[in-house]
Amino acid sequence: MEKERETLQAWKERVGQELDRVMAFWLEHSHDREHGGFFTCLGRDGRVYDDLKYVWLQGRQVWMYCRLYRKLERFHRPELLDAAKAGGEFLLRHARVAPPEKKCAFVLTRDGRPVKVQRSIFSECFYTMAMNELWRVTAEARYQSEAVDMMDQIVHWVREDPSGLGRPQLPGAVASESMAVPMMLLCLVEQLGEEDEELAGRYAQLGHWCARRILQHVQRDGQAVLENVSEDGEELSGCLGRHQNPGHALEAGWFLLRHSSRSGDAKLRAHVIDTFLLLPFRSGWDADHGGLFYFQDADGLCPTQLEWAMKLWWPHSEAMIAFLMGYSESGDPALLRLFYQVAEYTFRQFRDPEYGEWFGYLNREGKVALTIKGGPFKGCFHVPRCLAMCEEMLSALLSRLA
Amino acid sequence: MEKERETLQAWKERVGQELDRVMAFWLEHSHDREHGGFFTCLGRDGRVYDDLKYVWLQGRQVWMYCRLYRKLERFHRPELLDAAKAGGEFLLRHARVAPPEKKCAFVLTRDGRPVKVQRSIFSECFYTMAMNELWRVTAEARYQSEAVDMMDQIVHWVREDPSGLGRPQLPGAVASESMAVPMMLLCLVEQLGEEDEELAGRYAQLGHWCARRILQHVQRDGQAVLENVSEDGEELSGCLGRHQNPGHALEAGWFLLRHSSRSGDAKLRAHVIDTFLLLPFRSGWDADHGGLFYFQDADGLCPTQLEWAMKLWWPHSEAMIAFLMGYSESGDPALLRLFYQVAEYTFRQFRDPEYGEWFGYLNREGKVALTIKGGPFKGCFHVPRCLAMCEEMLSALLSRLA
Repeated sequence: MEKERETLQAWKERVGQELDRVMAFWLEHSHDREHGGFFTCLGRDGRVYDDLKYVWLQGRQVWMYCRLYRKLERFHRPELLDAAKAGGEFLLRHARVAPPEKKCAFVLTRDGRPVKVQRSIFSECFYTMAMNELWRVTAEARYQSEAVDMMDQIVHWVREDPSGLGRPQLPGAVASESMAVPMMLLCLVEQLGEEDEELAGRYAQLGHWCARRILQHVQRDGQAVLENVSEDGEELSGCLGRHQNPGHALEAGWFLLRHSSRSGDAKLRAHVIDTFLLLPFRSGWDADHGGLFYFQDADGLCPTQLEWAMKLWWPHSEAMIAFLMGYSESGDPALLRLFYQVAEYTFRQFRDPEYGEWFGYLNREGKVALTIKGGPFKGCFHVPRCLAMCEEMLSALLSRLA
Repeated sequence: MEKERETLQAWKERVGQELDRVMAFWLEHSHDREHGGFFTCLGRDGRVYDDLKYVWLQGRQVWMYCRLYRKLERFHRPELLDAAKAGGEFLLRHARVAPPEKKCAFVLTRDGRPVKVQRSIFSECFYTMAMNELWRVTAEARYQSEAVDMMDQIVHWVREDPSGLGRPQLPGAVASESMAVPMMLLCLVEQLGEEDEELAGRYAQLGHWCARRILQHVQRDGQAVLENVSEDGEELSGCLGRHQNPGHALEAGWFLLRHSSRSGDAKLRAHVIDTFLLLPFRSGWDADHGGLFYFQDADGLCPTQLEWAMKLWWPHSEAMIAFLMGYSESGDPALLRLFYQVAEYTFRQFRDPEYGEWFGYLNREGKVALTIKGGPFKGCFHVPRCLAMCEEMLSALLSRLA
C-alpha cells in the first residue's frame, strides 16, 4: 500500500513537472502576436518553420489554454487567457470559409485567408470546443452562441444531411462510418454538457446515439475494433473494413468510460475495458520494440499506409489516459500496471529533455524519425491534455488512499 | 574496355532475367478474368488483399503490357495482348465518372463503379497512355481517338481552364505549379509523338513549353530542384516551397534528356545532367544507409511527411534509368558508376528472391517496412519500365562497343 502510494506520488510529480515544461514550450514559441492565433509548425527547438495555421490545431490550443486556466490554479494566468482570446478572435474572424455558411477551412494563411477546406466535420468540432471553453473562462455569451450554433450544424451534417460538407455521391463508394465521427460528437456532448443542465439534457439522447455507434465498431464476436463499418454496423470488405488504429480505439475507450460514468452504467464500463482498452493493447503493442503500432489490419495482413509501424505520440498519450481512467474507475491493478508500462515507454521515448515538448514521430524501433515538435497534425493538445488529466486522476487516487 | 564490356553484359543479363521474373508475377496474380482490368493490391506472395481498381495503375499496366508486347520479342505473346485489351475495355467502360465528360475516377470497385475522384489530371494521363499504346498494338482507331481526345482535354485543363477539375478557388491558396504536371504532359508528348509525324508536329510547341516549365523548378542559383514553384517560376514560402523529392527530380531528368535528344540540344543535355541527375543524387543519397530519401527540405529542415526518410522502389528505378541514359548520351563514366551504385543497392534491397517482384517500401535502414508487392500506388509499371529500358540501353551500349 505504501509502495503503491509512493509510485502514484512519484508519477504525479513527474507528470505535473512535464506539463509545466510542455506548456512553457508552447507559451514561448507558438504565439502569433501580430495576427492572433498560434504557430504550430515548430522545429525541435521551437523555431517556426512554416506559418500556416491549421484550424484543428488553432481550436485545440484555444481549448487547451482555457481548460488549464480554468482547472489548474498554477495556469490561471493572464498570458494563457489573453493568448486563448486572441486565438478565439482569430478563429471568429477567419475560420469560416464563406460566412454566414458554417463550413470552416482546414488551413489558413498566417493572416487568415483560407488555403484548404476538408469535406469533414473536424475543423468545425475543434472550433466548437474552443468557443465553448472560451465562454466558460470569459462568460461572454457570443462565444457560447457560436459554439451552440456550430454544434447544431455539425449534428445536422452527421444525422440529417451531409450534403453541405461537399462530398460527391459516387455509386461505388460504400456508405461507411468512420469511428472518428461518433467519437468526436460524443466529445462535444461532454464538452457542452459539463455543468450545464440544459445542454446536458438537450444532448443526452445524442450522447447515447454516439455511444451505440462507437460500440458498433466492435466486430468479429468482440475480437476486433474496426475503424470503419457500414452505417448499420456491419464489417466492410477490403482494406477499409480491416483497418485498425489501436490508439484511436483506446481514445474511444476513455470517451466511453466517461459516458458510462455519466450514465452510471457499470456493465458498459466492463465491456469498454475489455474491448476498447485490453483488446487494442494486446493486438497493438509491439512485442519486439515496445510502443503501439499506428495502424494494423484485422487479418494480420500488411497495412498499405507507409507509417503503419511507426510509433506516434498521440496513441501513447491516449493510452495513458485510458489505462489510468480504467484503473480509477474499476480498481483493477492490471490496468494500473498497463498505465505504468505505457507511461514508462512514452516518457523514455517521446520526451525531449533538451528543448521540451515531445517528439511526435518515432520509427518502429523507437528512434526519432521526425524532429519537429509541431506540424500540420501536432499542436498543443494531446500531450498537455494527457498530462493534465493524468495529474488530476493521480491526485484523486492519492486522496482516496489517504 | 573488356572489363567494361563484361560488366555491362552481366548487368544486361541480370536486368533481363529480372524483367522476366517481375512480369511472371503480374501475369500470374493480377488478371481479373471476370471483369477485365487488374488486381494491384497484392501481398508478398501475390495474393489479392483488396479488389479495388486504381485507375492510375490500370492505365499503367495496360501501357506496360502493350509496350513490352511491341518492343521485346519475348513478350510478343497473346496473353499480354489479351490482358491489355481486357484492361483497356474495362477503362473504356468504367474510367470516366460521368460520360461524355472526360473526368476519370481515381479508384473503382472491382466491377467498375467509381469510389473516388481526384481533382488532378493523372488518372486521365495514364488513361491516355494506355489508349495510345493499345492503338499501336491493335491498330484499332477507336483507341487512338480516345487518346487524342483525352489529350486535348488534359491540355485544356492545364493551359487554359482548370475549372473542370473541380478544385475550389480559395483566397489563401497560392497559384503553385507541381513539377509533376509539366513532367506528365512531356511524357504524353513523347508517347503520342513516337513515330507519328503529324502528332509530333502538333505537340512540338507543347513539348518545349513543358521543358521550360520543368526547368523553372531549378531554383537557388541552380543549387536545388524544388517540387513546387509559383506559376511564374519563383520559390514559394514555407514547407510547400522547400519540398524536394530526389527521385522525382531524377525522373524529370530522364524525361528532359529524351526531350533534349529529340531537339538535338546538347547544351540542355549538359544542364540536365548537372541539375536533375547529379544534384538530386548528391543531396538525396543517404550517406549513412544508402538509398535515396523520399522527401527532403531544401533548407535541410525536417520534412513533415512521416515517410520522408523511407526508401521507396520507384525513385530507385527512375535513378537507374536516369544514370544509364545520362551515360549513354554523354559517355561520362561518372554516370555509369552512379548507375552501378544505385542498381547494386536497388537489386540488393528491393528484390524478393522468394516470390518475385520488388518490395516497395523500406525503412531508412533498408529493412522491408511493407511486405506488399502492389497497392494503391504500386502496380506493374516502374519496375518493368526501368528493367525494359535498362535492358534496351545496355544492349545499345554493348552494340556500340562491339
